[in-house]
Amino acid sequence: MKVLVTGIDGYSGWPLALHLLARGHEVVGIDNFATRRRVAEVGSWSATPIPSFARRQLAVKEVLGKEIAFYRGDLADYDLVEKVLATERPDAIVHLGEQRSAPYSMIDVRHAVMTQVQNVTSTLHLLYAMRDKAPDAHLVKMGTMGEYGTPRVPIPEGFFEVEYRGGTDTLPFPRQAGSWYHWSKVFDSGDVMFASKIWNLRATDVMQGVIYGIRTPEMTDRRLFTRFDFDETWGTVLNRFIVQAILGLPLSVYGQGGQTRGFLALEDSIQSLRIAVEHPASAGEYRVFNQFDAAYSVNHLAEATAGIARELGYSPTIAHMPNPRVEQERHGYEPIHEHLYTLGYRRTRTLDEVIREIFQTLRRYRRRLEAKRHVVQPTVDWRRPDNRGSLGARAPTPPTPPPSGAT
Amino acid sequence: MKVLVTGIDGYSGWPLALHLLARGHEVVGIDNFATRRRVAEVGSWSATPIPSFARRQLAVKEVLGKEIAFYRGDLADYDLVEKVLATERPDAIVHLGEQRSAPYSMIDVRHAVMTQVQNVTSTLHLLYAMRDKAPDAHLVKMGTMGEYGTPRVPIPEGFFEVEYRGGTDTLPFPRQAGSWYHWSKVFDSGDVMFASKIWNLRATDVMQGVIYGIRTPEMTDRRLFTRFDFDETWGTVLNRFIVQAILGLPLSVYGQGGQTRGFLALEDSIQSLRIAVEHPASAGEYRVFNQFDAAYSVNHLAEATAGIARELGYSPTIAHMPNPRVEQERHGYEPIHEHLYTLGYRRTRTLDEVIREIFQTLRRYRRRLEAKRHVVQPTVDWRRPDNRGSLGARAPTPPTPPPSGAT
Repeated sequence: MKVLVTGIDGYSGWPLALHLLARGHEVVGIDNFATRRRVAEVGSWSATPIPSFARRQLAVKEVLGKEIAFYRGDLADYDLVEKVLATERPDAIVHLGEQRSAPYSMIDVRHAVMTQVQNVTSTLHLLYAMRDKAPDAHLVKMGTMGEYGTPRVPIPEGFFEVEYRGGTDTLPFPRQAGSWYHWSKVFDSGDVMFASKIWNLRATDVMQGVIYGIRTPEMTDRRLFTRFDFDETWGTVLNRFIVQAILGLPLSVYGQGGQTRGFLALEDSIQSLRIAVEHPASAGEYRVFNQFDAAYSVNHLAEATAGIARELGYSPTIAHMPNPRVEQERHGYEPIHEHLYTLGYRRTRTLDEVIREIFQTLRRYRRRLEAKRHVVQPTVDWRRPDNRGSLGARAPTPPTPPPSGAT
Repeated sequence: MKVLVTGIDGYSGWPLALHLLARGHEVVGIDNFATRRRVAEVGSWSATPIPSFARRQLAVKEVLGKEIAFYRGDLADYDLVEKVLATERPDAIVHLGEQRSAPYSMIDVRHAVMTQVQNVTSTLHLLYAMRDKAPDAHLVKMGTMGEYGTPRVPIPEGFFEVEYRGGTDTLPFPRQAGSWYHWSKVFDSGDVMFASKIWNLRATDVMQGVIYGIRTPEMTDRRLFTRFDFDETWGTVLNRFIVQAILGLPLSVYGQGGQTRGFLALEDSIQSLRIAVEHPASAGEYRVFNQFDAAYSVNHLAEATAGIARELGYSPTIAHMPNPRVEQERHGYEPIHEHLYTLGYRRTRTLDEVIREIFQTLRRYRRRLEAKRHVVQPTVDWRRPDNRGSLGARAPTPPTPPPSGAT
C-alpha cells in the first residue's frame, strides 16, 4: 500500500515510516520540522542526535535500500495538502503532524491558541483534501487516551450504549481532557467523526496511551534512530525519570504519584498503527481504537526506573513535588482495548525490558543529556498566570472542584 | 452590574445591550462588524436597515438617555482583549462574538477553518484575559442546542449520571454536532469547562435553541431595531419561510420536514441571558443551561407561517426539496430545560404572535426583501465538493450511516 505519513520527521512518524518500508509498503512523508524548532525553543534537544531529513533519506537508501518521497511543508497550507493528495493518491494517511506536547500548550495564551488552531486546521485540511482528491483513502488519526480523562467508569473504545431516562442510544463517550493540547485532540475527533459521516470517508481514530521506548528493530544504524526528548515540555514522565537517574537528579513525581495512564512500547505503537493501515475502515466508517498495553501509575514508573537504575550502578532518589497539573492523583482507570487485538495485535515488549534498553542506548549520549540538565526539572505550572519558575516555592492553591451541572 | 457584550453589533448582542441598559446595568461592547461584512459577502443584507454603530450609540443616547462604551476590534487580537478587560473590569462577559452561521461554515474549506479557528481563538482569548485581568468576572457563553445533535435519549443540561459496566459517574453529555460551526461551539464548551476548573473561573454555558423574532420592547424607535437576516446562509428557517411567503416564493422545506429543534423568542432569549448575568455562577463553577421554550418541526414552522400568511392575504405554497444538510428527518427530541426556570425565567411570547409581528414589521421593508430575492432559496449542499447551485438538479447521494464503534 502507499501510505502518507504526516509528521514523518517526528518521534513516532520516523519509526513508522521505517517499519512500513520494511513491510514492503510505499511511504510518502510530509513535515514542517516544527518539533525540531519547538524543542529548541524551550532550550532542549533530542538525546539522540537527529540528522537532517535529507541525510535520513540517504540512510534509508543505504541501509534499507528504500526510497521515501518527502514534502517539506506545512499542513496549514491547504494548496500543498491538496496537491500532495492529488499527486500521491495514498491508500492510507497516518496523521501524526500535530503539536503533541501538553505542557507546551499550557505555557501561555499564545501556545494554547497555536496548539488548538494548528491541530484543528491540519485535520480539517486533510479531511477536505481527502474528500476532493482521495475519497477512498483511509485516515488513521493519532488521538490520545487523554481525551477521555479519568472517569469513574470503564472507558469504551469511542462509543458506548447509554440508558438514560427511559431511552437508549449508542453515543460517543464523553471527553474530559486535561490540557489545551488534549482538548485539541478531542476537537479533531469530532471533526473526523463528522466528516466521515457527511462525506463517507474511512477513518480510524487511535486513542493512544503514552509511548515509551527509543529503538525499533528497523533502527540497525545510528543514523536511523528516532528522536528522544527528555525535557519537561517534550519528554514523557518515563523519559524524564530515566534521564534524571542518569544525571543524578531526583526523579520528580508530581503530587502523590497515583496518576495512572495507559502505556505502550514504541515498537508496539508502530505495530498497531501498521495494523490499522493494513485493515482499513469501511467507507463512511469512523472507528475508534484504544491503544495501550498496561496502565501504570507514576509511582510505578518511578520505582521501576529506580530499580533498574540501581542494578546499573546509579543511585536514584525519588522526590514528590507539588503537582503543576490539574488532575486527580488517586483514581481508578479501566479503559477497554480490544479492537486492535481482534485484528491480530499482540504486545511484544515489556516495560522493564524497554527501560533497560533506553538506559543502555542513552549511555553513549550522556554528554548531550548533561548539556541540557537545566531543562529536565518541571517549571510550567498549569494553574498560574506567571507560569515559569513558580514550582520551587510551594504548592499552588488547590480549589479545583470537578465540573458539575448547575445546581 | 457592568456587562461586557462581545458581538454587541449582532442580532442578539444589540437587543441584549438595550435590555441591560433598560434594567439599569452598565454596558460595554466590542465588535469587529464581521457579520455585516459576511452577510454582504453572500450578497445579502439585513431586512431592517442597520445604522452605523456610531449612529446606534447616538440613538441609544437620544431614546434611552444611556451611554454604551464601545471598542471596535477583533477578539483575535489578544492585546486588545486583555486591555478591554483590564480597563473595564466587567462583572459579567456575555460572549456572542463568534461566527454564528452553520451554512456559512459549510461553504468550503476556508470557511470551515475560519469558523473553527476564530470561534475557538476568541473564547481562549477571553478565558486567558479573565484569568489575568478579571478573575471574578462571570462568563456567559453562547452555545447552541445543536451541540447535542438529536440523540435517542433525553438531553440533560450539560451533565448526566452514567452507569456503565458496574461504575457510575457524572459526565458531560456527549456532543454530536451537525456542522463545522456547531462543532466549534462544542470545542468552546470544552475549553470553558476546562478553564473554569483549572483557574477557578465562573462560567455559564448557554445551550440555546433557534431564536425567532425581530422586536424587543426596548426597540421603541426604528434606529434601535436589530438586524434580521433572511438569506439561505444567515437567515434561520423561520425567517426564510416568512420572507418566502412575502415574496411569493415556495416555502422551502428540506426533505421530509420532520427535523425538530428547540426554539425561543428573541425577547425571551434576551431575558434568559439577563437572568444568567444577574445570577452569576460560583467561583470554579461551570454550569450549563439548555435554553429554549418549545420544540417545533420544520413542517410545523412552515404550516404556522403559511396559516398566518393566508390570514394576511398572501398565497403561500410549501415545497419539499432535497435536504442539503446531513441530518435525520424523523426523530424524537426531548431536551431538559429546567435550570433557567428555577432562576425565575418565564416564557413571554408565543410563536404565532411573533410570526405576526415579523410579517407586520417586514411590510415596510418589502423593497429590501425584493432586492435580495435571489439569495433566499438554498444552494449550499453540505455533502458535495462543488457546493454551489447543485440542489436544483437532484437529491445528493444518501449513504451517511450514523457514527458507530469499530466492528
